[in-house]
Amino acid sequence: MRDSRHDILFEPLRLGPVTAPNRFYQVPHCTGMGWRRPRSLAAMRGVKAEGGWGVVNTEYCSIHPTSDNDYYAYCALWDDSDIRAHRLMTDAVHAHGALAGVELWAGGGMIVNHATRLPPMGLRSLPQTDDGEVQPGQTRPMDLTDIADLRRWHRDAALRAVEAGFDIVYVYATHGYLLSQFLDARTNTRTDAYGGPLENRVRLVRELIEDTREALSGRAAVACRFSVGLEDAESYDAFGLLADLPDLWDLTVPDYDIEMSNSRFVRQGALTESVARAKALTDRPVVAVGRFTDPDMMAQVIRSGAQDMIGAARPSIADPFLPLKIREGRSADIRECIGCNICYAHDSQGVPIRCTQNPTMGDEWRLGWHPERLAAAPSAARVLVVGGGPAGLEAARVLGARGHEVMLAEARRVMGGRVTRESALPGLSEWARVRDWRLGQIAKMDNVTLYPESRIGPDDLPAMSVDHLIVATGAHWADDTVGRNNPYGLHEMDRDMIVSADDVLAGHMVEAEHIAIYDDDHYYHGSVLALALRRAGHDVMLVTPAGRVCEWGTFTQEQYASTAALIAAGVRIVTNRVMTQAAGGAARLACPFGGADITLACDAVLPLTRRIPDRTLYDAVRATDHGLQSISLIGDAEAPGLIAAAVYSGHRAGMELGETVDLAARYGRRETSV
Amino acid sequence: MRDSRHDILFEPLRLGPVTAPNRFYQVPHCTGMGWRRPRSLAAMRGVKAEGGWGVVNTEYCSIHPTSDNDYYAYCALWDDSDIRAHRLMTDAVHAHGALAGVELWAGGGMIVNHATRLPPMGLRSLPQTDDGEVQPGQTRPMDLTDIADLRRWHRDAALRAVEAGFDIVYVYATHGYLLSQFLDARTNTRTDAYGGPLENRVRLVRELIEDTREALSGRAAVACRFSVGLEDAESYDAFGLLADLPDLWDLTVPDYDIEMSNSRFVRQGALTESVARAKALTDRPVVAVGRFTDPDMMAQVIRSGAQDMIGAARPSIADPFLPLKIREGRSADIRECIGCNICYAHDSQGVPIRCTQNPTMGDEWRLGWHPERLAAAPSAARVLVVGGGPAGLEAARVLGARGHEVMLAEARRVMGGRVTRESALPGLSEWARVRDWRLGQIAKMDNVTLYPESRIGPDDLPAMSVDHLIVATGAHWADDTVGRNNPYGLHEMDRDMIVSADDVLAGHMVEAEHIAIYDDDHYYHGSVLALALRRAGHDVMLVTPAGRVCEWGTFTQEQYASTAALIAAGVRIVTNRVMTQAAGGAARLACPFGGADITLACDAVLPLTRRIPDRTLYDAVRATDHGLQSISLIGDAEAPGLIAAAVYSGHRAGMELGETVDLAARYGRRETSV
Repeated sequence: MRDSRHDILFEPLRLGPVTAPNRFYQVPHCTGMGWRRPRSLAAMRGVKAEGGWGVVNTEYCSIHPTSDNDYYAYCALWDDSDIRAHRLMTDAVHAHGALAGVELWAGGGMIVNHATRLPPMGLRSLPQTDDGEVQPGQTRPMDLTDIADLRRWHRDAALRAVEAGFDIVYVYATHGYLLSQFLDARTNTRTDAYGGPLENRVRLVRELIEDTREALSGRAAVACRFSVGLEDAESYDAFGLLADLPDLWDLTVPDYDIEMSNSRFVRQGALTESVARAKALTDRPVVAVGRFTDPDMMAQVIRSGAQDMIGAARPSIADPFLPLKIREGRSADIRECIGCNICYAHDSQGVPIRCTQNPTMGDEWRLGWHPERLAAAPSAARVLVVGGGPAGLEAARVLGARGHEVMLAEARRVMGGRVTRESALPGLSEWARVRDWRLGQIAKMDNVTLYPESRIGPDDLPAMSVDHLIVATGAHWADDTVGRNNPYGLHEMDRDMIVSADDVLAGHMVEAEHIAIYDDDHYYHGSVLALALRRAGHDVMLVTPAGRVCEWGTFTQEQYASTAALIAAGVRIVTNRVMTQAAGGAARLACPFGGADITLACDAVLPLTRRIPDRTLYDAVRATDHGLQSISLIGDAEAPGLIAAAVYSGHRAGMELGETVDLAARYGRRETSV
Repeated sequence: MRDSRHDILFEPLRLGPVTAPNRFYQVPHCTGMGWRRPRSLAAMRGVKAEGGWGVVNTEYCSIHPTSDNDYYAYCALWDDSDIRAHRLMTDAVHAHGALAGVELWAGGGMIVNHATRLPPMGLRSLPQTDDGEVQPGQTRPMDLTDIADLRRWHRDAALRAVEAGFDIVYVYATHGYLLSQFLDARTNTRTDAYGGPLENRVRLVRELIEDTREALSGRAAVACRFSVGLEDAESYDAFGLLADLPDLWDLTVPDYDIEMSNSRFVRQGALTESVARAKALTDRPVVAVGRFTDPDMMAQVIRSGAQDMIGAARPSIADPFLPLKIREGRSADIRECIGCNICYAHDSQGVPIRCTQNPTMGDEWRLGWHPERLAAAPSAARVLVVGGGPAGLEAARVLGARGHEVMLAEARRVMGGRVTRESALPGLSEWARVRDWRLGQIAKMDNVTLYPESRIGPDDLPAMSVDHLIVATGAHWADDTVGRNNPYGLHEMDRDMIVSADDVLAGHMVEAEHIAIYDDDHYYHGSVLALALRRAGHDVMLVTPAGRVCEWGTFTQEQYASTAALIAAGVRIVTNRVMTQAAGGAARLACPFGGADITLACDAVLPLTRRIPDRTLYDAVRATDHGLQSISLIGDAEAPGLIAAAVYSGHRAGMELGETVDLAARYGRRETSV
């Protein structure tokens, strides 16, 4: 059944003293759970092991309170309570025959120790330099005593890792944290044995690998996470000096905007060339990520000798069962990561990880949700879902899987709602995967019927004799300019000057030559619409009340690339301005800090200030004596938001149909200490 | 002993069914602890009650999972685990004869329910509008069923509050959260009984007050937190409609930039006039804040009839024992809040509250620290503290209080280090309180001797025969332009063009007419130095790589006012620019997103990129055969940072002198769930 070319992915691999059952390797990735949510973490990692990942790592794990990363979530191995916490995870992973790994972590100049209040240690006395953050506070330069302390803390943490049941223990030498600062000549200006020539700068990493090996004494493998980049020749020299020391290399590239980029800018397999060059320098197994979702490409990468294992963070989040599906020859069932980085955005805000494609992600423990197993409904009902966007499709899929008889009606000819429209915009093509995976699953269900080009009105309902109605009719962009900074809309507005974002999304031609987008949305819409209008030949200005465009894109790691793309495309960016007027061929822009107004000449204004839920059907049916068992409003029609929120809303509707839910007991479930 | 004019502050006051023992009222305030850190919260609130606050409230407390405020910390009363958690706090407060209060909270359009993933409820479908934040996601408009649900949830939470032992239960109708959205015509566009005329818009608040009273049935008082503002006549009309309904009014003003302003912009007692006008409309007791630290002013405010109780958040954080000190006639011992809002900044980042003046704040449970009681040292030692800035002063004070013999040597004539210099800058005068309170305490200690104008070198040590040396020699601003965005400094730099921030801080005349401040510090220094230079007649430009100036000031609630002050003063602001060159009468500014460079004509550049620790003495002594029992480096000399961090560092040094500390056991102590 399985394509024999994929067999190579299922060959076991020796990693020093342990053996990975296959080549699927979930690299350490953040989850927004950390030491505060050990049960959530264990349940989530357990599902990955169940789904066939041969190695499952937990998230970065502080070795000592001199490295805390509050307000982010992070794991810790500081004391016995941490051993108990991690044991939940290793047990869950081992139950499915996978190996469990832990990435020991020391912060350096990226952190400020908000919680422990101990001064962070670094190489020079430099201000904290986390990406996109400017916390006051400089690091304390480490002396030789500090280095000795660090080595002792790392060794002790490795011993606790063994006690917690881990099979792989990392030395974490990249991502800007302490060890990468030792490697980097820019940050390492020491004049002692740990600074200066490259041999000295790799010394601490070498010592930690050796220390860890000694501490583990064959009970677990030593891995090292490390960066190599084609444009950084020295990184290969550094790698060469350490090449045969660890049992496993987990390689990445120095540019986090490549490794963790949004799919708008970087596609599958972007690291392979950099990694392959290092792989040639070592006999040790190499794993690397690349947002791989295509099994042919995975097999090819391994066959080519570029790397030995397929590392994954995001693809394992979008589909924890990816390996099993390939093994069983069900590659078409893979729920492919769309590279939106909503996972990262939530972690970056200190809350459990979320996924657009996989709404169960992060809720394995709290709600007992599972990405593949959906409990059969106690009794089958006849359900009409109106609206074939992300929410409606997910609701129909879940209801179908649970055994209900489902009709899914969509007014347009093409299903997918907003993901269909948005995926036509520059860079967003992968977003169609949200639609396509669901359509693929639904196509296999006899009990779900799609009705495209079917606009449903309240009068249609009686004839359909359904038990439940789920309304997922989406939302449209408002042209009233009402939003965050304009609670009543613009003071003065020439209606003729207003261009609707929906017109651009629908592919309509816009007449105006000079268009000012008023972006009080602060996520990707402003950028991608600006690029689309540029491509169509318009002169485009992007006005934002924020200090930067795509400000929320900081959380999805796209703010930088998004802005660079706008500048490269010749979009004029105007920051820190609130639009107050659009009339007479110009927009008036106020300064939010009381400075003078400015005037921006433009033929048209495209407001991105809010979306209006399309609740006509919902409100109309509710006003009638409908006789339905339930009516629910989901997705953007209930509350416009992230696509991830719409999918989640659809999943909830599918899981909870006909149930009376005690919201407090279910959604209020937390890991408390009292 | 006590000034009889202050007696009025110690008169009990009837609040419906309960009686406050005095007029000191700690209003609900955030702590960064919330439901996750109930022991930390209980210990901290208990200390306030011990210090004489007659009423101690906990922080805002969600009534239901439809209002979560992750990633911030918040309390909850969702279930039995919350009752157990709050019981820790009410017991701690009752142990000292104070009343315990809880502010029931529903989020509305300010929140996004990151953790519970339930759509937030609001009045219109509007994007989330938290101050300074732009989360994607709109609220779900509430229908009458939702309102009925909300009332039931609020009532149930009130019942749980009684079970948890609270004496006062709030209806929370301000700060932009759900209930204030009902009151506000701008956000409340309903056409039913809850919208339109003011009588309708206050309906929900009225119902909740009545529901709460009924639920409590005399077991606790009903308070209402509400905003009135002189420039908002309708706010008094709304107040008038509800005036005699609750047992207590907790009043504030609509402008959070007044209520919670940094001391740079707003002084003590700023709310009194607004509050007094409402007080005249009700027979019920009124409490209001105003960052009161002066007992004469407190007594005057009550005597004048403007309000009945002295509300406090920040002054109770800076000095939990403020009431007791007034009662005992020790007003000079009050540790006055400096209005820096570091408390708020930490809460805003989801970590426990910190305080510049009170380093024990937030560490009452974790470290067992107490603001007033310092354990006597097991044996008295002879300690030399070098440096009389925030760290050195705090170390000397703590060591003195613990019975050591302390010499504090300061090179300058005036003690205080950076707080002395910075407090001379525009708006920062209150920062001298950090110095003055410590000097006042030290003046009463026979065992602490100050040595101003005493520069200590390693050769001086033998003659002083000390057991321990604590080096608190501070830091100075670097003029090498090395920092976050310039790891090697500017590419090209004309040394003559560089002006040191320290020269301005020292009050030296700057020759240059056109000065560009390069602010890669992102906190207050850029703004206050710009204002100082403007006042001295210079043409000033402020260049920042960030999207806004004083970006970190978002957390201290000063970003807006700080920027407005710069604009009003005629400072030219250049955002989103990295300086790369300062030469030939101009600065070259690169675009961080790959756009074209620009050139800024200027005679001088003042870099705020990092500070250099002054460790000459420390390093020199460590290099000798000194014979000391210990040498420690503290404050900015160890790691330049917040003044709060320096004070904390000094406190630690004083508490831990001569001890071998197990950092992991002490600073790694957490409230875990496993």
